[in-house]
Amino acid sequence: MGASLPRPDVREKVTGRAIYTDDIKLPGMLYGALVRSPYPHARIKSINTEKAKALPGVKDVITGGDTPQIKYGNWRLVPASQDELPLAVDKVRFVGNEVAAVCATHKDIARKAAELIEVEYEELPALFTVEDSTAEGAPLIHDDSEGNVSLVRKIEYGDLEEQFAKAHLVREDTFKVHAVSHAYLEPCSSLAAPEEGNRITLWTSTQTPYIVQCLLASTLGLPENNIRVMKTAVGGGFGGKMELRPWEFCAAFMALRTGKPVKFTLTREDELAFGRRRHPMSIYSKVGFSKEGKLLAKDFQVLLDGGAYNAMGPTATFLCGTFGNMLYNFPAYRYFGRHVYTNKPPASAMRGFGAPQAAFAAETQMNMVAEELGMDPIDLRLINAMKTGDVIPEVATVSSCGFKESLEKVREISGWDDRKKNNKNLGIGCYSFISGGVFNWFNTKYNFAAAEVTVFDDGTAQLASMACDIGQGCDAVLRQILAAELGISPEKIRLIAMDTATTPKADLGTWGSRVTLMNGNAVIEAARKIKDMLKPVIFSEFDLNQIHDVGFDQDRVFVKAKPKNGMTFAECVYKALRGRRGEPLTARGFYTPRNKGLVSPAFSFGAQVAEVSVDPDTGLVKVDRMYTAHDCGVPLNRMAVEGQLEGAIQMGLGYALMEEFYMEKGRTLNKNFLDYKMATAEDMPPGESVEIEVYEPEGPFGAKEAGEGLAIPTAPAIAHGVYEATGFRCQNLPITPEKILRATGKLKG
Amino acid sequence: MGASLPRPDVREKVTGRAIYTDDIKLPGMLYGALVRSPYPHARIKSINTEKAKALPGVKDVITGGDTPQIKYGNWRLVPASQDELPLAVDKVRFVGNEVAAVCATHKDIARKAAELIEVEYEELPALFTVEDSTAEGAPLIHDDSEGNVSLVRKIEYGDLEEQFAKAHLVREDTFKVHAVSHAYLEPCSSLAAPEEGNRITLWTSTQTPYIVQCLLASTLGLPENNIRVMKTAVGGGFGGKMELRPWEFCAAFMALRTGKPVKFTLTREDELAFGRRRHPMSIYSKVGFSKEGKLLAKDFQVLLDGGAYNAMGPTATFLCGTFGNMLYNFPAYRYFGRHVYTNKPPASAMRGFGAPQAAFAAETQMNMVAEELGMDPIDLRLINAMKTGDVIPEVATVSSCGFKESLEKVREISGWDDRKKNNKNLGIGCYSFISGGVFNWFNTKYNFAAAEVTVFDDGTAQLASMACDIGQGCDAVLRQILAAELGISPEKIRLIAMDTATTPKADLGTWGSRVTLMNGNAVIEAARKIKDMLKPVIFSEFDLNQIHDVGFDQDRVFVKAKPKNGMTFAECVYKALRGRRGEPLTARGFYTPRNKGLVSPAFSFGAQVAEVSVDPDTGLVKVDRMYTAHDCGVPLNRMAVEGQLEGAIQMGLGYALMEEFYMEKGRTLNKNFLDYKMATAEDMPPGESVEIEVYEPEGPFGAKEAGEGLAIPTAPAIAHGVYEATGFRCQNLPITPEKILRATGKLKG
Repeated sequence: MGASLPRPDVREKVTGRAIYTDDIKLPGMLYGALVRSPYPHARIKSINTEKAKALPGVKDVITGGDTPQIKYGNWRLVPASQDELPLAVDKVRFVGNEVAAVCATHKDIARKAAELIEVEYEELPALFTVEDSTAEGAPLIHDDSEGNVSLVRKIEYGDLEEQFAKAHLVREDTFKVHAVSHAYLEPCSSLAAPEEGNRITLWTSTQTPYIVQCLLASTLGLPENNIRVMKTAVGGGFGGKMELRPWEFCAAFMALRTGKPVKFTLTREDELAFGRRRHPMSIYSKVGFSKEGKLLAKDFQVLLDGGAYNAMGPTATFLCGTFGNMLYNFPAYRYFGRHVYTNKPPASAMRGFGAPQAAFAAETQMNMVAEELGMDPIDLRLINAMKTGDVIPEVATVSSCGFKESLEKVREISGWDDRKKNNKNLGIGCYSFISGGVFNWFNTKYNFAAAEVTVFDDGTAQLASMACDIGQGCDAVLRQILAAELGISPEKIRLIAMDTATTPKADLGTWGSRVTLMNGNAVIEAARKIKDMLKPVIFSEFDLNQIHDVGFDQDRVFVKAKPKNGMTFAECVYKALRGRRGEPLTARGFYTPRNKGLVSPAFSFGAQVAEVSVDPDTGLVKVDRMYTAHDCGVPLNRMAVEGQLEGAIQMGLGYALMEEFYMEKGRTLNKNFLDYKMATAEDMPPGESVEIEVYEPEGPFGAKEAGEGLAIPTAPAIAHGVYEATGFRCQNLPITPEKILRATGKLKG
Repeated sequence: MGASLPRPDVREKVTGRAIYTDDIKLPGMLYGALVRSPYPHARIKSINTEKAKALPGVKDVITGGDTPQIKYGNWRLVPASQDELPLAVDKVRFVGNEVAAVCATHKDIARKAAELIEVEYEELPALFTVEDSTAEGAPLIHDDSEGNVSLVRKIEYGDLEEQFAKAHLVREDTFKVHAVSHAYLEPCSSLAAPEEGNRITLWTSTQTPYIVQCLLASTLGLPENNIRVMKTAVGGGFGGKMELRPWEFCAAFMALRTGKPVKFTLTREDELAFGRRRHPMSIYSKVGFSKEGKLLAKDFQVLLDGGAYNAMGPTATFLCGTFGNMLYNFPAYRYFGRHVYTNKPPASAMRGFGAPQAAFAAETQMNMVAEELGMDPIDLRLINAMKTGDVIPEVATVSSCGFKESLEKVREISGWDDRKKNNKNLGIGCYSFISGGVFNWFNTKYNFAAAEVTVFDDGTAQLASMACDIGQGCDAVLRQILAAELGISPEKIRLIAMDTATTPKADLGTWGSRVTLMNGNAVIEAARKIKDMLKPVIFSEFDLNQIHDVGFDQDRVFVKAKPKNGMTFAECVYKALRGRRGEPLTARGFYTPRNKGLVSPAFSFGAQVAEVSVDPDTGLVKVDRMYTAHDCGVPLNRMAVEGQLEGAIQMGLGYALMEEFYMEKGRTLNKNFLDYKMATAEDMPPGESVEIEVYEPEGPFGAKEAGEGLAIPTAPAIAHGVYEATGFRCQNLPITPEKILRATGKLKG
């Protein structure tokens, strides 16, 4: 454990052998195309599909009117939150809203047919900001949403007024954060094959096969068991592939109608112009501190710009409030989060799930407070930092926390205390994050994670799980966990391709940094059941006294007290198999967090320092070095953790400095990777990172999340560094050269 | 049960939607081609692959020398019987023996490259008949086979000499039966995809995925778990697809070498010229009867022409002897079967597995005896017929037998007793057959059959099994069995595609008419475990006294004594799922026959009458009507049983009258369906059939086999009819017009 083991999928991917959904071709397969709204808000008056239907090669054309019109959304527990239809009926609500779909024998025919569909619209006034949407008398985007607010989340504890009254320092600040793209490398693709009896097999690029299975069944009006979702290689998700999507519905619906397999594959333009995004937020934060720097009260009010549909917005609205009191321990907190509709592509889950936004505001404000109190920002944080055993009110008790150690370590490795002397512009940002969610808004009846392990008398094992490796490397980690538990080498374990029908139900998928902890625990439970099947062989073979135990290590099974008394793992399986008269040695393990509150079974923490230089003439920011110290529990695969950190910094750089959608009346203008600027390898700073190894009792082998938390502190750390370099305190991401030059007076007007 | 339910695969197949192996295309896939020997027996002096390797597009070329050279064969329990290599080394033994393989980016390039491989041979004397092979001083085809006999099987019980001495009538007759092709509609195809860690996923047209998995692993020198065999739609097998085949090895071996998927697809010419065939046999049978017609003794000596390799010949040699004493009960029996190598394509398993040959001889001889004794052939059989409770010595006790009833019924429906009056030429043939084999020559450590059942709270169920539907309809029957056991409709059950990794281990596949009985019992066991999970819901919900039981019917679960006290199946599953805190309701069932002897757990019986007319001038035989009465236990799906009967008659017609390989020095001359004549729809006689419903205690719902037995009686029945029409008693299949005309004096010289 803790070794840097290579991932089984890497060679497959870099050699082009991995099979993504779009690589799959079935005989007689049809190609789908979508018709999308050109208007941000409009009434559909009529749709004429005659010309499209008449085009040779076109096999089916559907509009919303042809479909069962069953709304969907991931919050099945709150049906009112389910506000989306696969194809719009009556109204379109953003530029790109899906209106009709066609399928044809060739891609070009499908695209041409889509162009031939004539939709008559009546334009409606459109709303593009949360301020406009919540203004008095604003038109309603959804008729049943009061004031265009789709969901409200409130947290309140402690006596806010009393604490503010006691406070030595009270600050009120506002922040704005913007939308960015997941920019996963694989555009979405879905292929539905029909089967006898209204059944569908769906290959799709998703983080959540089971969620897609359930919601697709629901929108088609079919039993869940009629849908089988096959997981193929997935080229990144970052939260953008965890819902049912219109093309999944259209592929399945038209496959049932035509009796042919139907495939949809999006383009990069589709993804950037119409795809899910990270929530823009308008944040008001009022904090009160004692003279000594103790945080006493926080009033945190957030307007989330959700775009045209809820998508995963309800979860972001919920979590944003929770992230506001997860990092520091303070007595009085009020959160008021409102999820607001606008006529833009829906915002949804994206790496951090509300935390990057909340932390940008809170951590920037922390640095402002430190300055005002004349305290070192790290000292200020140390005074307030969450620690093991602390209670996050109404959330959970923190069962492990290496936050203070992270702060101390990052202070050390970044040369923080000598920064003035060395003329370095250092900025700090911190984070805490969840290791999967306890909340069950999806209302699954099954366990949260499941695994099935089978062992063979050739000394190998098989691991079946619906956990999705979307590039984060969970396949490697789960294999490692199983190997460690069974005492065999990871190479001897075959992971089989995931599929909702052949893996034990259910797995909620990859999101909220849940996989290592939740699936890891399920794997351990299954492995222990297997060991219980093998131990009797050793007990009877070596005539063991009951008080002994059996060990599993280095492909051997043996008496723990007398390791020479044992046999190979293969031989032990063989004997057990004989004893079971041929019944295979298979076991299932499950994990559902219980008695862990309603947010998460475990929390990760970390601190990051950015060393920044700014060109005073061009305003260009260069991140020279990044220093990170973080508590992800006991790291299981160090290389995988480092990979997550590198990816997180790349995304953090983009979020802080360059990624941004340029929009005009609801239309996205930058629709390709030339115009939508992301950080590249050249922008990546060197750096140093240290894992603070705190054993998490709820985690497998002491591990917790390392996938999302690291994406949170980068933007506030860079913003702080820019302030140190220029005196410009950015409260409105991204930190563009233009903003810096205006602030420093180099650019006027 | 017993309903005529449509098969779930039929629409898929007739609409072209079913996916056969050759339909699958993977990115970067290479196409394979084989180099085959043009000589029946030759030493390989050298192989030059330079020109082939130099051809642009060629990615790999292999010869036997490149491979691990591990011999394989299905009789793992007798390693000496494993005599085949995927690619020949040193010697070739039949025209078509695989010598080298290539793979390339295009089929045509692969074929061209195969032609460019230069093999230098030294021709050796070749043997084409069992008589030549077993002659004194014949050259050896395999060095370690004494007298070219690869396997001997002896059965002997009772005092043969004493019984022959007592007999009123003793006859000695010889018979010859010929080779025919399985002629499955789908030529073999295999596609191997490589995975990290020397792992292979293999899609292949097979009846026995697990056998292929094990033998492929063995020949590659890899753990079994490194091979995952995916079952696709299979277009017929009839015994011809139940072994590891050279192209499966070559695809996998070259996939590992090149890192690319490799596919081989045979042509019809390959199949007919080089493929497996039914064993030709030379049969000597001596029988002794009492004056009253009681069979007293039988001496049955068979030379099986096995071709160049053992293939499934050992099993045919074993079973042929068993079929000699399975239909009639008599005190003294001797069987001496020898499996002989010749320089022809290997003979192997084919529908009936030794029985069509043995029965042609035995049933024809029975009719000869009846004539000689002046008895009615049906009366003679009734005197000797096996019945329930009879013991087949050293084999098993017959737990159910409707043979006598079959004889009486076929006598009735065919108008047998009035045949002379009505001037009809009727001939009779009878059979008995096994319902799967108890013998475990494959030496599996697992159960013989396995099933996994999962039920869902949408009221549906899923059935996972590695049982292979190769066109015989077992998917429908297994679904029906599960539906009946759970009390839900078959449409609510989803069968998932079979695969050695995701279905419980193991299933020996489809052969020996084993699936309905063995997998059916495994399904029942799994279903009963599921019911045991559901019953507690009813017991606690309705506060039931322990003495009650729970019923399952019409999608409801209820108190048997008070059916109104119950709930829907879906609701019951939901409540059980809640009670299990989300652990899915999945159960596995297994079946291995125990205490059922060493041959089969159950035996089927039947009688068939052919009504025949022969054109005296052309010698053309027309089968006017077929009458069949048979005991397949309780038929589960009447339509499926009738389908088996129709297919069996089609094959029986071909075997009796027209199918034949024309060979010249080991080369097969008729290599397409124009030259290799099979019976077509136009040749199919109308007829009548009756199922004698005898409950088989070992069978699921009383069922036993209906797939192979019916293929046995047709040839002897037709031969008998031809004798009645012409006075020509054919003892040497097929019954060609030429033979008839010669026998009737119409053709001289």
